[in-house]
Amino acid sequence: MERPVVTLLTDFGPDGPAAICRGVILTIARDAQIVDIGHNVRKFAIGDGAFLLWCAVPYLPVGVHVAVVDPGVGTDRLAIAILSERGDALVGPDNGLLIPAAERLGGIREARALENRDLWLASATSSTFHGRDIFAPVGAHLATGRPFADVGPIVPAETLVRLPWPSASAHDGELDTAIRYIDSFGNCRLAGLPSDLEQAMGTLESGRRFRLWAGEGAPLIVTWQRTFGETPPGATLLYEDSFGTLSLADNQANIAERLGLEVGRPVRIQSAA
Amino acid sequence: MERPVVTLLTDFGPDGPAAICRGVILTIARDAQIVDIGHNVRKFAIGDGAFLLWCAVPYLPVGVHVAVVDPGVGTDRLAIAILSERGDALVGPDNGLLIPAAERLGGIREARALENRDLWLASATSSTFHGRDIFAPVGAHLATGRPFADVGPIVPAETLVRLPWPSASAHDGELDTAIRYIDSFGNCRLAGLPSDLEQAMGTLESGRRFRLWAGEGAPLIVTWQRTFGETPPGATLLYEDSFGTLSLADNQANIAERLGLEVGRPVRIQSAA
Amino acid sequence: MERPVVTLLTDFGPDGPAAICRGVILTIARDAQIVDIGHNVRKFAIGDGAFLLWCAVPYLPVGVHVAVVDPGVGTDRLAIAILSERGDALVGPDNGLLIPAAERLGGIREARALENRDLWLASATSSTFHGRDIFAPVGAHLATGRPFADVGPIVPAETLVRLPWPSASAHDGELDTAIRYIDSFGNCRLAGLPSDLEQAMGTLESGRRFRLWAGEGAPLIVTWQRTFGETPPGATLLYEDSFGTLSLADNQANIAERLGLEVGRPVRIQSAA
Repeated sequence: MERPVVTLLTDFGPDGPAAICRGVILTIARDAQIVDIGHNVRKFAIGDGAFLLWCAVPYLPVGVHVAVVDPGVGTDRLAIAILSERGDALVGPDNGLLIPAAERLGGIREARALENRDLWLASATSSTFHGRDIFAPVGAHLATGRPFADVGPIVPAETLVRLPWPSASAHDGELDTAIRYIDSFGNCRLAGLPSDLEQAMGTLESGRRFRLWAGEGAPLIVTWQRTFGETPPGATLLYEDSFGTLSLADNQANIAERLGLEVGRPVRIQSAA
Repeated sequence: MERPVVTLLTDFGPDGPAAICRGVILTIARDAQIVDIGHNVRKFAIGDGAFLLWCAVPYLPVGVHVAVVDPGVGTDRLAIAILSERGDALVGPDNGLLIPAAERLGGIREARALENRDLWLASATSSTFHGRDIFAPVGAHLATGRPFADVGPIVPAETLVRLPWPSASAHDGELDTAIRYIDSFGNCRLAGLPSDLEQAMGTLESGRRFRLWAGEGAPLIVTWQRTFGETPPGATLLYEDSFGTLSLADNQANIAERLGLEVGRPVRIQSAA
Repeated sequence: MERPVVTLLTDFGPDGPAAICRGVILTIARDAQIVDIGHNVRKFAIGDGAFLLWCAVPYLPVGVHVAVVDPGVGTDRLAIAILSERGDALVGPDNGLLIPAAERLGGIREARALENRDLWLASATSSTFHGRDIFAPVGAHLATGRPFADVGPIVPAETLVRLPWPSASAHDGELDTAIRYIDSFGNCRLAGLPSDLEQAMGTLESGRRFRLWAGEGAPLIVTWQRTFGETPPGATLLYEDSFGTLSLADNQANIAERLGLEVGRPVRIQSAA
């Protein structure tokens, strides 16, 4: 029989809490194959967590995905599990973190509130560590084959909390977009697809020049490139990243640091001669 | 048959040494379920490592726990294994690192010195990497079911090296405590339990105000809170952390950085009107 | 049956890409035992990656080793797999990253170009994420027992790209060497072995003094030590590191930071009275 996959995405950092969740999972689902998506999500940045989970899930086996970026822990926000159309269970807080990933896995088949305390950690008394006390144990019980309906009562999908999910808009030969995520290279994932840029500007060819505003001051001149290898170190490029989204980078350098860029910053792109 | 669990806690950082230990373990115990508790313990900070191991072990399955924070490697400090009353084996240097965790697992049933070189790495010649050469391979042999007595001769538990383990003391309506650990959020775990504070001051209710000294200068005014969600971002709170200990934090901010706090710093708490 | 081991070494950092590779591997080789060697290789530093892989492989079980430090992704550099004499498969870019490890595993038995697209990720269209689209899936297919010859046509070993691999040279009572790697403690691994130093200077005894130039300005006075424990905190020592190479460190401090040292920096060592 196949070992069940349980993935973990949190903002717990490199301290012990992630290991405690792994321990809780293995105590309940001793044969689980645990896959750490990452524990270095920017603290309390629900949007960053939602983006990273959205990026990862299509490449993960069908399984249980436990995600915890939870600034509202201890308030009356719900603890939820979402069953995706692909058959995955996503477990975490009802703050928008799980929704984009669920939609990328075919959509929401069913959502439930984690109110069945039999699936919580037996010793759970804490008000501030739902990762250990609720999300990890419920995820582990689902991984052992426990029916999804056991976690608690149905929550109508349309009442779940949703985050703004920025998009790109083309008009008058310009593309208005925004920085959605900055990775550890300083590369900026923008809202929208290369096809959005193409629609506004026509065919994208390697070396084509654009004018780009990403803050105050004069615009940057950047080129569209198929790959990093086509440009000299330090050159600024627009490219299709590995997730198929539109991205902005300095080749072998950190554009976010160089320009002081932040998530959410509006970006405008125009064709340049 | 269940796969044996081997956990790892070190200050090796993100370089290769932790992976080398994982490789050594899997070469000996091919079916081991390795759980990384963490490899980012502050360098040489035995007390931090002891605290993190103490935090994690109650939530880990019974297994072998290899811990290496070892500034004295190469001196005549012993290499030891401790059998806990719960049935775990803790493996590491005799410098106090393992004791609090062993006590939390029911106490020390038996301690032995790792003098049986048959269980060391065959090629072991290094004087500075006992993690790879001694602790990981001995742990892996124990994980394969090798009897605990095989590791070497008994060491009387009362001769093991012990660290100071700070506690809280209440007197004259004050609580004297100290910072025991600072996590990656900058939150400070204090010595003692909320019940110590309650004993000195009476009932703790959300919003109750305290005067707190954590260094030179004027005291802070902080409130007791049941959860982070009850306070505005930036507010300073005293709370019961997820391990049940007394903690000090800025909500969604880093109090340790803001005030230059360090492990070991004395903290005094008084009731405030 | 034993679970196949697949190791991963990349410069992807703590974001999602490493997890995506793990997901791709588990989707193909559901029973794989994945061992992360590390994902914090200095960005684009092929030499650092080659050194870390060279350090780790002797301690890893025979398996598939996927390594990605790939500044030339998207150019016409080959994607390759190397079969080692020990029986390992090393998978990654043809930029020198894999060669030292292959040689440490007994040498190169056969090298092949990854041109069989049946082993690539089905949805592979990206030009910038060969880790996910080519290296991880090819490695996973090899882990499931797929014959090595299936990955693509043979590449003559002598045509593979090789990196300079610095060595030490002794002359006139001096040793000329260079910094090959700086670990997370700031300790500097130098090219060469203690035996090179011994050949130039005679017997090494704990406490023997040397004069050492590692940059501009006056030389350092350092002592040879068998272990860190033999010197006071802050003392600068030359020692045999755990990989058997010659190393330079400040005991319990960071010499690289203190002196602004960098990989590649020439180092000269002379006997001192």
